[in-house]
Order: sequence, then C-alpha cells, then structure tokens
Amino acid sequence: MKVDGARLREDVEANAEFGALDGEGNGRTVLTGTEPNRAAREQLVDRFEDAGLDVRVDAVGNVAGRWTPPSADPDAAPVAAGSHLDSVPAGGIFDGPLGVYAALEAVRAMQDADLAPDRPVEVVSFTEEEGQRFADGLLGSSVAVGERSVADALALEDDEGTALASALESIGFRGEGRLDASEWDAWLELHVEQSERLERAGVPVGVVTTITGITHCDVTVRGKANHAGATPMDERRDALVAASEFVTAVERAANEVDSETAVGTVGSLDVRPNATNVVPGRVEMGVDVRDVDYDAMNEIVDRAADALARLEDERGVETHLEREFDLRPTAMSERVREAATAAAESAGIETLALHSGAAHDTMHVANVTDAGLLFAPSEDGISHNPAEWTDWDDCATATRVLAGALADLAGA
Amino acid sequence: MKVDGARLREDVEANAEFGALDGEGNGRTVLTGTEPNRAAREQLVDRFEDAGLDVRVDAVGNVAGRWTPPSADPDAAPVAAGSHLDSVPAGGIFDGPLGVYAALEAVRAMQDADLAPDRPVEVVSFTEEEGQRFADGLLGSSVAVGERSVADALALEDDEGTALASALESIGFRGEGRLDASEWDAWLELHVEQSERLERAGVPVGVVTTITGITHCDVTVRGKANHAGATPMDERRDALVAASEFVTAVERAANEVDSETAVGTVGSLDVRPNATNVVPGRVEMGVDVRDVDYDAMNEIVDRAADALARLEDERGVETHLEREFDLRPTAMSERVREAATAAAESAGIETLALHSGAAHDTMHVANVTDAGLLFAPSEDGISHNPAEWTDWDDCATATRVLAGALADLAGA
Repeated sequence: MKVDGARLREDVEANAEFGALDGEGNGRTVLTGTEPNRAAREQLVDRFEDAGLDVRVDAVGNVAGRWTPPSADPDAAPVAAGSHLDSVPAGGIFDGPLGVYAALEAVRAMQDADLAPDRPVEVVSFTEEEGQRFADGLLGSSVAVGERSVADALALEDDEGTALASALESIGFRGEGRLDASEWDAWLELHVEQSERLERAGVPVGVVTTITGITHCDVTVRGKANHAGATPMDERRDALVAASEFVTAVERAANEVDSETAVGTVGSLDVRPNATNVVPGRVEMGVDVRDVDYDAMNEIVDRAADALARLEDERGVETHLEREFDLRPTAMSERVREAATAAAESAGIETLALHSGAAHDTMHVANVTDAGLLFAPSEDGISHNPAEWTDWDDCATATRVLAGALADLAGA
Repeated sequence: MKVDGARLREDVEANAEFGALDGEGNGRTVLTGTEPNRAAREQLVDRFEDAGLDVRVDAVGNVAGRWTPPSADPDAAPVAAGSHLDSVPAGGIFDGPLGVYAALEAVRAMQDADLAPDRPVEVVSFTEEEGQRFADGLLGSSVAVGERSVADALALEDDEGTALASALESIGFRGEGRLDASEWDAWLELHVEQSERLERAGVPVGVVTTITGITHCDVTVRGKANHAGATPMDERRDALVAASEFVTAVERAANEVDSETAVGTVGSLDVRPNATNVVPGRVEMGVDVRDVDYDAMNEIVDRAADALARLEDERGVETHLEREFDLRPTAMSERVREAATAAAESAGIETLALHSGAAHDTMHVANVTDAGLLFAPSEDGISHNPAEWTDWDDCATATRVLAGALADLAGA
C-alpha cells in the first residue's frame, strides 16, 4: 500500500496557515472556537468530503469522517484513527494536525490501493486536546469516552466567561449527539514524539507502550501586597519569594523521586499586583506532574504540598493546592501495538518501543476500546514551540505504518 | 492657625471616587491620562479656583495653584507644597492625594487666619509620581527640576505605544511651558508613611531626614520553551526555575547586606508562554532596590548580577540585567526640617525624625531647592493597596504641621 507523502504534506502545510504567527518559524495559535480553529475545521471537512467520507460533528465539536467501503459491513464496529487540530499558544504545526491528516491519508491510501476492509474506518479530530481555553486538556475525547457529559462540557467557560457551547456555535461547529469511542473496534493515533529518543536512536517510528499519567495542580500563595520601599525585609509576606521556593521545590521533587521518567513543571505563574515597586501579594501557579509510575507522581505532589506547608510556617503566607486534573498512566493495547509492529516489519520500517511523556486523547480512548499510539520523530525534541519540526519523509514513513496497521485492524 | 479637618476629608474622599474599585475597601486605580485621572485633575482645578488660586497646567500636565496674597511680593520666590494624584493599580486613597489636598488646606487655613505671608504659596500636583504607565516614577517632578526635558517626557510611550503627549491631550491636561521647581524658595510635601514606625511610636507626624535611594533593574532570563511532559528533567532549560532562584537571591542579598534599612524586591514577573503544560522559555522581572546607603544598594545589585552569572553557568540560561533607573539617597533641607519641627512644637504636636523608604517627588525637588517631607501614620504600614488607611484625625494633625511650616517659610 502506497502513502502519498506530498498529499499529506499539502494538507498539513495548508492547515499550518490557520493561526500562523508572523515571523516565528512555523508557529501557530489555534484555540478552540476561534477564527483559526473554524478555518482549520472547515478545511478538514472539505478534505473529508473530497475523500468521500461521511462527515459528522458532535455536540462538543468533535469531527469524524467515516469511510464505509462496499466490502465493509456498515454496522460493524469501525476502526478509528486521528488526533486534534488545536494548538497551545505559539505552538507548532505538527502537534495534532499530523495525526488527523495522516489518518485521512491512510484512508486515501487504502482507497487508492483498492483495499477491501471488513470494517468502516473513521478519521477523528477531537476538540481542545491542548486544554488552553476551556479545560485542562483532552476535552473532546473525555466526552467521547463518557467521562464527561456533553452538558458539562458545553457549560465550561473560558477566562472571559464564554461557554464552550457559544464558542462552538460562533464558529459553526456545535453539532449534535455524541461521538462514542466505545463503539470503535480499535483506535490508533499518530503524533509527533516531542522528545529526542527516536532522533537519537535513528529510528523513524515509535510504538508507545504506556502513556504517562498526568496531574495538574492549581496552587495559590497569598502574602501581603505592600510598598516595596517602605516595607522592611523582616515585615514582609512576599508571595513571590514564597512561590519561587515552591517552584524550585517542584523541580527538586521531580529530580529526586525514584523514577527516571518522572517530570514536574511549574508552567504558569501569575503575580498580583505585578508592579516593580510593590511587594507581591498573591501568586497563582499551574503545576504539571507526569510519569508512567503513578506512585512517583503522588510522591511529587506530596512533596509539593509539604513545601507549601513549610512556606506557611516559615513565611507567614497562606497557600492552597488543588489537584484538579488527574489521569493515571495508561497501557496501550497489545493487539494494536502488534498490528503496528507487524505493519512496520512488512514495510521494512524499523520501530522503537517507548513510553509517552505527553498526554494524548488516546489515554481516554484506551479506557473504552483497544488503543494504540505511534510517534514520528521530533527534531531536537522540541514541541509546543514554533521551532517544532518533523521531516516530511518521517511524516510519510509513520503514516505508512499507521495505514498498514489500520488496514490490518479493519480486516483489509 | 486652624486647619479644617472636615474640609480636607471631603476633598480626599471626593477624590477617592475617581477610579474607585468595586468592593475592595478604599482601592482606586488612577493611571496618567485615563478618565479617572482627568476627573481627579478637574476636581483639583475646581478646588484651586474655589480658593482663589491662579491655576497653571504645564506641558507635562503638572498642575499648580498659586496664592499671592496682598501682603506678598508677587515676584518673590514662592514657597511650594504638594504631592501627586495618580496611583498604582489598586492603590490606596491617601498616597498622593493627601499631600495635594493638605497643601491646599494649608493655604485655605492661612487665608482663614488672615495670615500675611511675604511670599506667594504654590500648591502642586505632579504628573505620574507612581510611574505605572509612562516612566519609572517621579515623572512630573523630573521635568520640573530639569532632569528630563519636556520633549523627552512627552515622547514617552506606554505599553500600547500611546505617547504621554497624546494621553495628556486626550484628557485636556497638556498645558504649556514648564513648572520650574528651582524658582521655589522652599518645598514641603506631606505623604503617608507607608511603614509602621509612627504607629508603633504613637507619634502623629514624621519629619523625614533622608529619602532612600532607589534602583530599578529589568531582568530577563531566557531558557527554552518545551513540552512539560515530553522533556526529561535533565534536558530542560527552564527559565522559571532559574528566575525563581534569582528571586530568592535578591531577597537574600537584601537581608545579608550590611544595612538594616536596605530592601530588595522582585515586584513583577512575567512568564512566557505561561501555560501549565509548557516548560517556561522566558521570564522578565522588575527588581526594586532601595536604601539610605548607596553602597548597600550597589552591593545588592552586584549580588543579583552574580546570581544571574551563576544561573547561566549552572542552568544554561541566558540572562540580562539592565539598571535602568537609579536615584541616590537624598538628604532633606535642615531649614525646612526645622520649620516643620518648630511648627509642630508650637502646636504641641509630637514628631519623629525618620528616613523614607519610599521614593517621592521631593527627591527631585531637593536637587534644586530646600526641600522637606512630612509623614502621616499609615495603619499597619499598608500602602499601594486598597487597605491603605490613615485616620482622619492624623491627616488633620499632619496638615496643621504642614500649614505652620509653610506659613513660617513664607514669612507669615
């Protein structure tokens, strides 16, 4: 089966125009419900229709295109594949779109090769994987697996109080019903690795064994805002100095915990009132903790909480930690991994088994059906950044493995 | 001479309405060239006119009201007093306005007492003392003492690229000429203390000996933005962890330097891209260093720079420190201090000699004429905060000292 790398590249490059940043490499900002998001979604629907797929948009904006060849039982559980089209602010052009368009390209390759699968094949783009506007991430897939209700999702609000429902409405992508991932026979996502393991090993495709668990904590430190000149050092309750000790404590906990794969990050930090001549009165932070070992994640969160307790004692600040998002590590399906490995072998493509340090919609899907995840190499491991890059040849190679695995799973 | 505390309170309370925050104590936000700033300025001009003062607005928006009684030589160098009407974001209602309206009340008290000073008395409100929109602070007084040209000041731009000239124009307060502080025979400012020394001593008025020196540094830390899940701990160049070590280093330097009055603050800190799931790539900070001992200030800045050099070595980040604002400590005039102390003594009011840890326009004025600074107590030392408070009785008491000193300096 032959994948058309040029066609895939055209799709991804055209998608990269939506929300493109001026002068910052290949950067783009595509948040849910914005104009660039509308444009990206509309292009996808066009491409689905060009390939003869039946398009469906569900109530939370998940977009699916289904190919039901004459060979397939239209009532058979489909094999599904895809990823997401949204990005972080100033993110890259491959993170998400590659997986969506590679899945579409896999279907087109099966069509071009006149394959006759037993099952329909569905290409999916989930809403708000990155969680930059309405939720913490994996929003669309959380609804598709029934973890979050449609109503709860639609009621989510951004910082300005706009609900997901009206944001989707405004871009014409508030559909009906609910895409139900439990109805899929199997699921496979292709994504960029976002680390350097494939690049260092010189291997073009990764087959993921386990997806990291992920915890997000909201942390608040309250001190006392006061005049930076008139407040003696020993009378301060400086929220930023306390928060700074917390930031280094999170790093130390991730370094010291007994797991080489564990990571801990304070990614966001906002100071109030944030003026040079005012002692900071309040700091809010967003903490990200991940590992394939859930005990190690808990240990890092515990140490972070301990650090806050110590800061309350030592610095007279008030602190609050809320573990508001928590996903345990997720093992990938043996059957789907074997399909991917076999497809790669038969195409003479080398693969590497590795874990995913990033969260993916596949974490959710794995709870309701057999799911797998493939990686394409990321140059220098960079992602969530305009410098994110994957060679077009690597994109095509990984798509060949994806197409082969999907064909196998679909009984072609 | 009798000061009318109720009249003073009415003025300050009316001024507090401009830019008032909903539901946050007595907070207000009055930035230069905004609608609240226009309203505050217009009220001041009205009150000046009510008191029969000749009003003048100079090219950078400094507002002066001059009382030239029949007893005074209109060509004699006036005695001047005042402060500022702008605030920090969510600042208090006394910081600035008390000094402006106390000076006006002092003139009204002299008028009511039929005093016959030899010199005119000028009440002044300087533009942008707080430095929140166009400059680092003390903007209007920097022009009034000739340290900054009118043209340079008018060309200053805010973050949105709006020039001071057009901001003043838009509120009708771009006047003509330049208020020249060197033409004043003496200057006296009343301000809230912003510390707890008066409150603790149970003394209602402070007579300042020296105003702290003040340095502002802009600090940038550049690391590498990357995926918070897919980037192993040992491959990170996290700008926020490095910046956090810098924040604690500044605190340590201020604590350890050989001066009990020295303070060092990282008041502002901005993270990019500031998303929970992205390793921070860049942090910008605003650092404030102050002391009455200039050597101690330099020592703190040197240690801050050393900390950055160490972070470059240890964490692979790039750093930049620019000392973009620097004022040395300023001694107050013996003659003006004595006038204040004598006025207090003759009214049976106790005073405390102390230094000012906050910068004030008086720092500039002291470079061109005899200048003094009085403090009224700040409850719990809080300022730059909606909880800032000075009892109305204390306001009136300090204004009595101000009025007595001005009358003495004006030869009444």
